[in-house]
Amino acid sequence: MKSIKIKSTINFQKLFSMWILAFVLVLSIQAQRPAAPRVPRIVSPEISADNKVTFRLFSKEATSVILTGDWMAAGVSQPLVKNDTGLWTTTTAPLKPEFYNYYFTVNGVRAIDPSNPKILRDGSRYSSALFIPGTESDEYAIKDVPHGTVAKVWYNSTSLKLYRRMYVYTPAGYEDTSNKYPVLYLLHGGGGDEDQWTTLARATYIMDNLIAGGKAKPMIVVMTNGNANQTSAVTDWPDVTDKNISGSGGGMTEEFPNSIVKDVIPYVEKHYRVLANKENRAIAGLSMGALQTQITSVNNPGMFDYTGVFSIGIQTEFGDLTTRLTKAYDENLDKIKKSGYKVFFVGVGKDDFVYEGVQLLRKKLDEHSFKYIYRETSGGHTWANWRIYLSEFAPMLFK
Amino acid sequence: MKSIKIKSTINFQKLFSMWILAFVLVLSIQAQRPAAPRVPRIVSPEISADNKVTFRLFSKEATSVILTGDWMAAGVSQPLVKNDTGLWTTTTAPLKPEFYNYYFTVNGVRAIDPSNPKILRDGSRYSSALFIPGTESDEYAIKDVPHGTVAKVWYNSTSLKLYRRMYVYTPAGYEDTSNKYPVLYLLHGGGGDEDQWTTLARATYIMDNLIAGGKAKPMIVVMTNGNANQTSAVTDWPDVTDKNISGSGGGMTEEFPNSIVKDVIPYVEKHYRVLANKENRAIAGLSMGALQTQITSVNNPGMFDYTGVFSIGIQTEFGDLTTRLTKAYDENLDKIKKSGYKVFFVGVGKDDFVYEGVQLLRKKLDEHSFKYIYRETSGGHTWANWRIYLSEFAPMLFK
Repeated sequence: MKSIKIKSTINFQKLFSMWILAFVLVLSIQAQRPAAPRVPRIVSPEISADNKVTFRLFSKEATSVILTGDWMAAGVSQPLVKNDTGLWTTTTAPLKPEFYNYYFTVNGVRAIDPSNPKILRDGSRYSSALFIPGTESDEYAIKDVPHGTVAKVWYNSTSLKLYRRMYVYTPAGYEDTSNKYPVLYLLHGGGGDEDQWTTLARATYIMDNLIAGGKAKPMIVVMTNGNANQTSAVTDWPDVTDKNISGSGGGMTEEFPNSIVKDVIPYVEKHYRVLANKENRAIAGLSMGALQTQITSVNNPGMFDYTGVFSIGIQTEFGDLTTRLTKAYDENLDKIKKSGYKVFFVGVGKDDFVYEGVQLLRKKLDEHSFKYIYRETSGGHTWANWRIYLSEFAPMLFK
Repeated sequence: MKSIKIKSTINFQKLFSMWILAFVLVLSIQAQRPAAPRVPRIVSPEISADNKVTFRLFSKEATSVILTGDWMAAGVSQPLVKNDTGLWTTTTAPLKPEFYNYYFTVNGVRAIDPSNPKILRDGSRYSSALFIPGTESDEYAIKDVPHGTVAKVWYNSTSLKLYRRMYVYTPAGYEDTSNKYPVLYLLHGGGGDEDQWTTLARATYIMDNLIAGGKAKPMIVVMTNGNANQTSAVTDWPDVTDKNISGSGGGMTEEFPNSIVKDVIPYVEKHYRVLANKENRAIAGLSMGALQTQITSVNNPGMFDYTGVFSIGIQTEFGDLTTRLTKAYDENLDKIKKSGYKVFFVGVGKDDFVYEGVQLLRKKLDEHSFKYIYRETSGGHTWANWRIYLSEFAPMLFK
């Protein structure tokens, strides 16, 4: 690399030109702190015309800086190289258009890219976000199209005895009509929370794009917290009491499906303009959320015309839970057929560690001559796949 | 420090007990990556009974780890000390109950605390959050009280020719009544955006607490983006086009007040159940937002019964803008008195660099015998002060 670039693609300095005095004063205060070294303006990440990506980090003191990105194969990482000014850089091979995440490891410590204000949280871990525009990622881009409203809503779960949070997406135009809308309930994976679909999967921007492009019907999307013992994402856990956030885990996975039916759906159908019938009700989830989706959908024949099972199946390793799920399939698949349904979607990556369980699910559905759509993608248990499944499942809904 | 603690106050592992197989597989994949070293479970920050706080970070490779927190005086920071296992620790003196932020500098690189999932963004910079419970911070705590809904809403600004985002807080109970509510418009500071009041100031949790405690009336709070050339916070800038996010800065500070009156208030009064009159309309802001608050309020006599000016005044350093603002005061203060108003609140810290400008504002108000409430706190241009001003201003509203 030649030298440190001065111009940033995100030019915060310019935004502050009104505030020069304040800024100078603040900087002068910070400059006195040894812990806040004056860092030259760095551009990172920088995407070249051929989709090579250059990452940069400034530190004279660091002796090891390593890049890890979710485009890399397991076991692979990429060191940055330091020049004599203290600027560390590395450039990737051309990357496929996609919404990636990455982080640096600076002398053994995981760190977000300090030059990149776009970050992502997965459970308790943060990464930096990298969006490479192109055909393959076009449906996941934040674009200049009408955006729905994303509301953080608290509701009482009488079945879980908790005051809990969920996200409710209402499509662009919801506030300007008196129309009623269909609803998709969208469940996150293990270790995640109600925030996960909106950030790592960009679900609301995917919906904006699909709806703006006429590919999906306008719909409400409800993103719940599937950890039955949590009030909310960890970012909003109470400071003062932790009585409600014990994290007992385990069997709670099966308690959440009950609360979807008992608490979540009634709340949504009472507080939003909803078409409250099975023809206009869909449920989908990824990984743990796909297990909860199966439990909810299969145990409630006549409730959902649309079910999306992303990246989990009938996993023998889940013991009694699997026995109960299998029994529910055997008892209820004929009832669901009889009550009528439209789409049962099963998606999995070829390299996913749940692949065999998904094949057992297919076998079970076939045993009962239960029609479903099967989508096998490349790759494994990844956000890239979950974005694909949502992008393909949502257009099938409510038609 | 004795040794690495195994038990975390935030026990994610337990949450995943259902997911052991998946987890083991994921860890085995991650373990193959040299860039993702296996890190022992660390508790950081840990608050002792006497409010000393211990920070911990694990790295065998790091040679310098420094803590910087906003409770420290300018120029002060605190090194962490490494033991022979690679665990770095430091413990503070007892800290006053408050909502703090801090970061580590690891071999010259600013980093969030990897053991703390609660983080804060200020413009393009991230810090870790530290809440110390106690009397002084009680109003800022996330508590088990009814929470309002926080919605991210997009609206067309015809005056700015931009499709833009704002946050709308509707108080707990809004969805369960047909009542109309008063509205507080709350403006952020320079370098911030529509996210700032909710995160760094915890405005929505402050409102939840004040309303639950009967100290403030239930009200809608609208938190706008005051950078007139931005669509939204940087986290949600478009990926595909940047035509709307040029960051031209400068005189745009004065264009936003016009759009509050032309676009924001009409949007809110059309789409929410609002008491749409001056008796039920308040505006307040901090720093740049306090300048925009003055411009909006003083140029629109009869529009707001309540005005809150937090940490800015008539700053001579702003040249023509200040000339125009001074002229507006001279022309309109008598009109505002004539139209009637309830509260004009001015708050500033004793050590704030805008202190003199605030005294000029007071002088101007006194010249016109214009009644106002003056609140002088200790400290400077800080979030601690803005949380105090909001906590004191909100209870004065709509009574």
